[in-house]
Amino acid sequence: MIAIINGVYSENAQVPVNDRGFTLGDGLFETIPLYSGKQFLLDRHLARLRDSARIISLPIPFADSDIANAITNLAERGGISQGVARLTVTRGMGPRGYGIAGCDSPTWFLTLERYEPMGREKWERGFALASVTVAKNASSPLSGIKSTSALERVMILDEARKTGADEALVLSTGGHIACGSAVNIFWARDGRIETPSLDNGILPGVTRAMVIELAGRANLEIVESRFRKDVLMEAQEVFVTNSLIEIVPVTTIDGRVISAGPGPLTRRLAQMYVKTTSSGGA
Amino acid sequence: MIAIINGVYSENAQVPVNDRGFTLGDGLFETIPLYSGKQFLLDRHLARLRDSARIISLPIPFADSDIANAITNLAERGGISQGVARLTVTRGMGPRGYGIAGCDSPTWFLTLERYEPMGREKWERGFALASVTVAKNASSPLSGIKSTSALERVMILDEARKTGADEALVLSTGGHIACGSAVNIFWARDGRIETPSLDNGILPGVTRAMVIELAGRANLEIVESRFRKDVLMEAQEVFVTNSLIEIVPVTTIDGRVISAGPGPLTRRLAQMYVKTTSSGGA
Repeated sequence: MIAIINGVYSENAQVPVNDRGFTLGDGLFETIPLYSGKQFLLDRHLARLRDSARIISLPIPFADSDIANAITNLAERGGISQGVARLTVTRGMGPRGYGIAGCDSPTWFLTLERYEPMGREKWERGFALASVTVAKNASSPLSGIKSTSALERVMILDEARKTGADEALVLSTGGHIACGSAVNIFWARDGRIETPSLDNGILPGVTRAMVIELAGRANLEIVESRFRKDVLMEAQEVFVTNSLIEIVPVTTIDGRVISAGPGPLTRRLAQMYVKTTSSGGA
Repeated sequence: MIAIINGVYSENAQVPVNDRGFTLGDGLFETIPLYSGKQFLLDRHLARLRDSARIISLPIPFADSDIANAITNLAERGGISQGVARLTVTRGMGPRGYGIAGCDSPTWFLTLERYEPMGREKWERGFALASVTVAKNASSPLSGIKSTSALERVMILDEARKTGADEALVLSTGGHIACGSAVNIFWARDGRIETPSLDNGILPGVTRAMVIELAGRANLEIVESRFRKDVLMEAQEVFVTNSLIEIVPVTTIDGRVISAGPGPLTRRLAQMYVKTTSSGGA
């Protein structure tokens, strides 16, 4: 796989087996979309990465411009204009055990792959969500960061997919609606948009924040709070978001039909979002 | 670093950056001690690994004898008779995203390092434990498995060490005593040994199981249950266990003195344990 590792281009990118990213999932990542050759909201992804790095005491070994240049470099080499960059930073190598003392050389690498947006037909059909047994632990420092210790998210998606669903509906250990495996969730109830607040153990999604901004621009009322699952049974529309799938309607939850297809508010926000991506996030 | 990767010896062991062990912490590990050249309880470590692998639907790509041979191989090459082997298995490479479909080539590797047991003086002084803000989520499929998504454990240890403690005292999200960052916990109250039951979101420690067996052989009453933290304030002795540190007395918790040094039951079990290690686990 081609990649930029610690600033250097490599055609067969590898890391030592004793890198803590590999042994302990001790790292962070971001996925940044590229639309028509333009990096979308890179500044917001890097700001979140730096916030997360402070939480886990991980020094960030690059300037934002290093990442912008690395993405441009790989896009040019690969002739990729529609794609997804993945930036990973780990605590590198260090002494045996969990302690972070003596881990002074973080590792970072960047990869870029072509990415085809979801087809129209699939989008109109919408996602099926399935409730899972795993609950998000809001007391964990990991709940609000995009860490490479992602196996819980892997297992959440797997539990949902085993039922034939596209994504999961995850509650917090407190019993409130949280998120999916890789998505934030929103719904419309009586003309108002609602979404779980960040204290539900959820990731502060870059797309989530953008949707909240867009809703504000459209003069839609938006409420971030703690919600019990039964509010979803009163919702006229539900949708999920992340940087790659953008805004995707949810048409069924646990087999119960929410709507036959995307509702009017979902369509409106999705259209506004697409305009943002084509203007580079302005 | 020297290692056996997928059965092959390597002097500069590396993995591709898109191995899911690196990108998503999607893997398991075991640490197996070597005493006087003998692998200690390898069969139990591999049994736990296989149990964990079933939980996360990870195919295990080796026979137990492959691992025994790999440890022997590295021990002979390195001239190591007192050491710690680390076996890691990951889901290998696969399609983008969290989904596990199409991940059909697990990666495994084994490393072996010299390991010096804890000095007598440090052992007699015992560990200081510190309570942490992070709670163990018993609803997570990760709570009972030794996964490479270990960043939560890294952060738990870091929170404890920042207060000057050696290890953490972690509660479950249900508010019961769970474990430390890398240890199980036991205590003696009125001549009885008590320890959190496995439903508190703890790892089923190989040393924990051995201590329970040894207590049985010594005709000590042992109770596995859910316990509130205040029982520790009534304990005459507290100790923590894992495969590397074995049995270590805890002399303070959150600055409060439990005992001046190792108590009689801790000493007795530690002596029994040392006999087991020198007899190869019989």
